[in-house]
Amino acid sequence: MNEFKEISSLQNSLVKKVLVLKEKSRERKKEGLFILEGKLELELAVKGAYTIQTLFFYDAIISPTEVANSIKALQTQPEVISVSKEVYQKIAYRETTEGVLAIVKSKSHQLKELQFKTKKPLILVAEAPEKPGNIGALLRTADAANLDAVIIANPKGDLYNPNVIRSSVGCVFTNQIASASTAEVIDFLKENNIDIYCAALSASENYTAIDFNKASAIIVGTESTGLSDEWLGNSTQNIVIPMRGEIDSMNVSVSAAILIFEAVRQRHL
Amino acid sequence: MNEFKEISSLQNSLVKKVLVLKEKSRERKKEGLFILEGKLELELAVKGAYTIQTLFFYDAIISPTEVANSIKALQTQPEVISVSKEVYQKIAYRETTEGVLAIVKSKSHQLKELQFKTKKPLILVAEAPEKPGNIGALLRTADAANLDAVIIANPKGDLYNPNVIRSSVGCVFTNQIASASTAEVIDFLKENNIDIYCAALSASENYTAIDFNKASAIIVGTESTGLSDEWLGNSTQNIVIPMRGEIDSMNVSVSAAILIFEAVRQRHL
Repeated sequence: MNEFKEISSLQNSLVKKVLVLKEKSRERKKEGLFILEGKLELELAVKGAYTIQTLFFYDAIISPTEVANSIKALQTQPEVISVSKEVYQKIAYRETTEGVLAIVKSKSHQLKELQFKTKKPLILVAEAPEKPGNIGALLRTADAANLDAVIIANPKGDLYNPNVIRSSVGCVFTNQIASASTAEVIDFLKENNIDIYCAALSASENYTAIDFNKASAIIVGTESTGLSDEWLGNSTQNIVIPMRGEIDSMNVSVSAAILIFEAVRQRHL
Repeated sequence: MNEFKEISSLQNSLVKKVLVLKEKSRERKKEGLFILEGKLELELAVKGAYTIQTLFFYDAIISPTEVANSIKALQTQPEVISVSKEVYQKIAYRETTEGVLAIVKSKSHQLKELQFKTKKPLILVAEAPEKPGNIGALLRTADAANLDAVIIANPKGDLYNPNVIRSSVGCVFTNQIASASTAEVIDFLKENNIDIYCAALSASENYTAIDFNKASAIIVGTESTGLSDEWLGNSTQNIVIPMRGEIDSMNVSVSAAILIFEAVRQRHL
């Protein structure tokens, strides 16, 4: 593995492909491909059994040996390409200096593909999250809590948006994730006898009074509009974090973390 | 209160003063003044008994009556100035359309000024937080939990940075906040018999095993470097949130929220 194809021209078709996949959600969906960047992200995508199509590296930052080691666990080896400084600076985020970037195949993220290791899974559902930074933060918390799945209901954005990948610090690859309409997600939870706990202000119980030891889904909406009536009408119980100060809301990634880690605490007593 | 001074020139000295106070931390410190913007922020600063020196409003967005009502609780009424569209657009953040902006006197934030309503206060200490967004998020969580105080140890930035105020959604005005060197904060906590729980990975106990019913301070460091040895050497007990997934760290505002709300949960059992 010491001879690599090299690219030094900004006009190369693969360079153009990387740029369009980074910028255009429509292109990502059409091609079923996305761009990953960074060593940790690559490591987690390899662990998550993603198919890596093309791996680019810049040898002034990362050695060919380190690159080869980082992907040796993959069943299908990607094409590995050494790029010039000029090409690397063109395709990489400015602030990143880790020297690796890859074209990766998307997964399909269907509800029916979710596999639970336990009969009482703990799941996070986020309805129509908008900000990539919030989605990334939720995925990071879900990984830390080792949730059984994260479900995006009525997705507004693209899971493989570069800002989601980055803000999730690669946790988009470590979680089981499904996307579907709110109606489909509600059906799925009910079919699987999973309790639905909607984070909401009305008709709510203090979250610390809930028994999260049963199969449970914690549902969070957006900070601006909260959850839809479709969710609230199908709630097993609405839950709330009492606000004891002057303000009446918290950032969604913060409140989701508080709810999730209370459930985790109960489950590890 | 129907006649206001009006400003329509971008060359007006008060307009220039607003701009320099927004942009320059050094100027804010020298003058002991800062800029506040937004209705909620104004409401919370009034509640927090801040002294408002000058209040600007743009009457196409907010009515003089609403402006007058928003400050009627103040002991000392500020100078109220109506500004033209051009001036408002120059001094306001682009995304804000709430029509009010003020020059406000800073508080001094000394440790000796902290007043606790209880003998077993619950305090958050953040050591050298760098990102304004993280400081804002911590203050928002502290308000929601109704903490007795937030202490910034070895501050790197300025509490009245516009990005801190904005990301705290005004909670910089609702919390009791002190700033001091790490050595001074440690002395203060010890003198007041407040237990020191350092969020750290080494020699740590699971945070759920701690009894937070006594006077407690939760100490968090930065995501990149963690807490200094000065803190770790003075810890009553290091505490950790077990990471159960693939990654080994969480965002500091998320982990602080999990720790704080576990303490709050215990205190409200």
